[in-house]
Amino acid sequence: MVERLTVDYSLRTQDDPRKVAETIAGEQSSGTFIATPGEDAALKERAAATVEILEEFEDEGSPVLPGSSGGDRARSFGLRLSWPMTNFGPSIPNLLATIAGNLFELKGVAGLKIQDIHLPESFKTAYLGPGFGIEGTRRVAGVSRGPIVGTIIKPSVGLDPDETASLVEALCEGGIDFIKDDELQADGPHCPFDERLRAVMAVIDRHADRLGRKVMYAINLTGEIDEMLRRHDLVAETGGTCVMVSLNSVGPTGLTALRRHSSLPIHAHRNGWGYLGRSPDNGWSYRAWHKIWRLAGADHMHVNGIANKFWEPDDSVIESAKACLDPLFADRPDRVMPVFSSGQTVMTAHPTFERLGADDLIFTAGGGIVAHPQGVAAGVRSLREAWEAAVAGVPLEEAAKNSAALSKAIETYS
Amino acid sequence: MVERLTVDYSLRTQDDPRKVAETIAGEQSSGTFIATPGEDAALKERAAATVEILEEFEDEGSPVLPGSSGGDRARSFGLRLSWPMTNFGPSIPNLLATIAGNLFELKGVAGLKIQDIHLPESFKTAYLGPGFGIEGTRRVAGVSRGPIVGTIIKPSVGLDPDETASLVEALCEGGIDFIKDDELQADGPHCPFDERLRAVMAVIDRHADRLGRKVMYAINLTGEIDEMLRRHDLVAETGGTCVMVSLNSVGPTGLTALRRHSSLPIHAHRNGWGYLGRSPDNGWSYRAWHKIWRLAGADHMHVNGIANKFWEPDDSVIESAKACLDPLFADRPDRVMPVFSSGQTVMTAHPTFERLGADDLIFTAGGGIVAHPQGVAAGVRSLREAWEAAVAGVPLEEAAKNSAALSKAIETYS
Repeated sequence: MVERLTVDYSLRTQDDPRKVAETIAGEQSSGTFIATPGEDAALKERAAATVEILEEFEDEGSPVLPGSSGGDRARSFGLRLSWPMTNFGPSIPNLLATIAGNLFELKGVAGLKIQDIHLPESFKTAYLGPGFGIEGTRRVAGVSRGPIVGTIIKPSVGLDPDETASLVEALCEGGIDFIKDDELQADGPHCPFDERLRAVMAVIDRHADRLGRKVMYAINLTGEIDEMLRRHDLVAETGGTCVMVSLNSVGPTGLTALRRHSSLPIHAHRNGWGYLGRSPDNGWSYRAWHKIWRLAGADHMHVNGIANKFWEPDDSVIESAKACLDPLFADRPDRVMPVFSSGQTVMTAHPTFERLGADDLIFTAGGGIVAHPQGVAAGVRSLREAWEAAVAGVPLEEAAKNSAALSKAIETYS
Repeated sequence: MVERLTVDYSLRTQDDPRKVAETIAGEQSSGTFIATPGEDAALKERAAATVEILEEFEDEGSPVLPGSSGGDRARSFGLRLSWPMTNFGPSIPNLLATIAGNLFELKGVAGLKIQDIHLPESFKTAYLGPGFGIEGTRRVAGVSRGPIVGTIIKPSVGLDPDETASLVEALCEGGIDFIKDDELQADGPHCPFDERLRAVMAVIDRHADRLGRKVMYAINLTGEIDEMLRRHDLVAETGGTCVMVSLNSVGPTGLTALRRHSSLPIHAHRNGWGYLGRSPDNGWSYRAWHKIWRLAGADHMHVNGIANKFWEPDDSVIESAKACLDPLFADRPDRVMPVFSSGQTVMTAHPTFERLGADDLIFTAGGGIVAHPQGVAAGVRSLREAWEAAVAGVPLEEAAKNSAALSKAIETYS
């Protein structure tokens, strides 16, 4: 029995749906245009992709991509395809060419979105998955339960290393768990990576004894492969405990190369996700997309946040976070920390916990911490208290009765 | 004077366009959500992105992305932004996080497409660009003028190394210039890379003396970085003259790593381009997108073909090919070979030349060669004759009067 890869799509078409589904399967496996020598039944048997499911569902009647053939009213279908793994073997890059290649350009396709990827076992052997995941991140960060409370260094770009370290000083003073660079800041001439690392780690080290842990600093090492590996080693040597990378900036092979080299948790930033996932009918679902990076080795995956400042509805955010917590393989779950961000405050702790049903997550707030009128420490404390209340089933207002920091936070952010 | 990067977008919005443009510029540079310490006027001066142009244009009234704010009728604008290079330095990965990061997810954005990137000089120093380009490819392929006539090994996947070599035998026998693997075939268990390379190169070597050149074989080495570099070296050792890689499969850092290591022309496959570029209002234009890969080191870039079997109109194909031939920098043009494919036959030579005004290109045909009733040699010859006629301004039917191969081809493919 040949191992098969199974992928779920949503397909919109104005053409004969069965014909379009078969065309997709053919284009992405044994098919060609005009019959050629060698293309016989045995070869098709060996290499053909199979339409496993084609089921119509009600869509919202959104528009079609240009160049769509057929002329019928557009209809939407759940489409499941499967491929023999002997076509490409357990290789992420070659998986991508197969499941996310030319098919989006077929005339019969009026819309196509990859909804889920069911990875067969051979990928588990070929790729390491997250090196730290949830448990490892908790151990390294010294936060055994509840969300890891963090913040992003702002302004996004423009601070020099010393200014960055001053901000970190205030955040460590305030007892934060986690700090990340903005994705716009990696190794710009105004804030070189090495200097920023040294300046920030000196501050984190100075606070480590008092806190009983090192504040986890996800320093953005995004760059070319050799740059990233060198920076990773410098972080490890300097005693840093995390590195951050922009996934769409480096691509799949960049993340795999980093993971295979890395001794630190990898904080994965999804910037650029909008051009892949925002369209309801075209591109990638987060669930499908995030599996690629998780298999390659991301430990923390950005999922946006409840009531965020971006376009994304809460349902979509929660679905992404749940995807991060679902097992990747039955016997190697490879769970990763979902990272909540964007406009997060004490007001979003309860709805996040109620909808997610878990507190294995990184909860980053910018203004939600540093704009607390009583200062950073009160900002951090109020977030922890909000989350403790949420997990304990205590209403936020109720919990605020015993906490000046929390009641002030509610007043500020509601 | 600080060097700046300039990028052109098309922006659709239902909100105040000026406000949305400024929000994009802020989000992607010095901006944040609530004012924070350190965010002062000097910092903004140093790091802020600037709205250079915001000009309305007539659009086709296509729909908006979900979550779009404002509620007005959607309008479209040409938006030019510029950034100080000191924000990120000449790094492709960090360029991407800046120009193609979170901005697609802003509420004010009802549609956003990156139309062009104007690369400042510092990128020229930091990246090698194509190692062979047009002149180098012609030299290595032994084709000094006219299109490089090629084909794709079909069926896409399912042949073993010996079957592949048999096809190559027939193609070399027929005098072809160029052969490429299908993007679905790299190192599958049924057709391992090393065996395929050896089997095919043995055939190519056997024909080299007679042809006075080695047929260029773009063998698909797509994989993880270490795999690609090893395969590249094996190709070079075995006397191969080209490697092929799927761009979206490996990502920007993968291509850069390959280029820095490579001694061979890099044939760049764009599969997956559909989910990035097919939407009229969201994602990437080919012109913008292809510059990233060209700067990183691609020598040949796929552009689809006139009258292709996919959704894409001819205008779009020609615009992509023209982009490949436009200079990247004034004093280092870095021109690359546009690769035409998909349903190409003798019938598409004239319209392609008439619209492109150039014959510096790779022209690949599948059925257009192997389905020629008189065989592969006649298929190849007829394509060359069609192109010679096109360049000489001789109508196709006129040229066919002196060529049995061409007249049979016209009969077959028209």
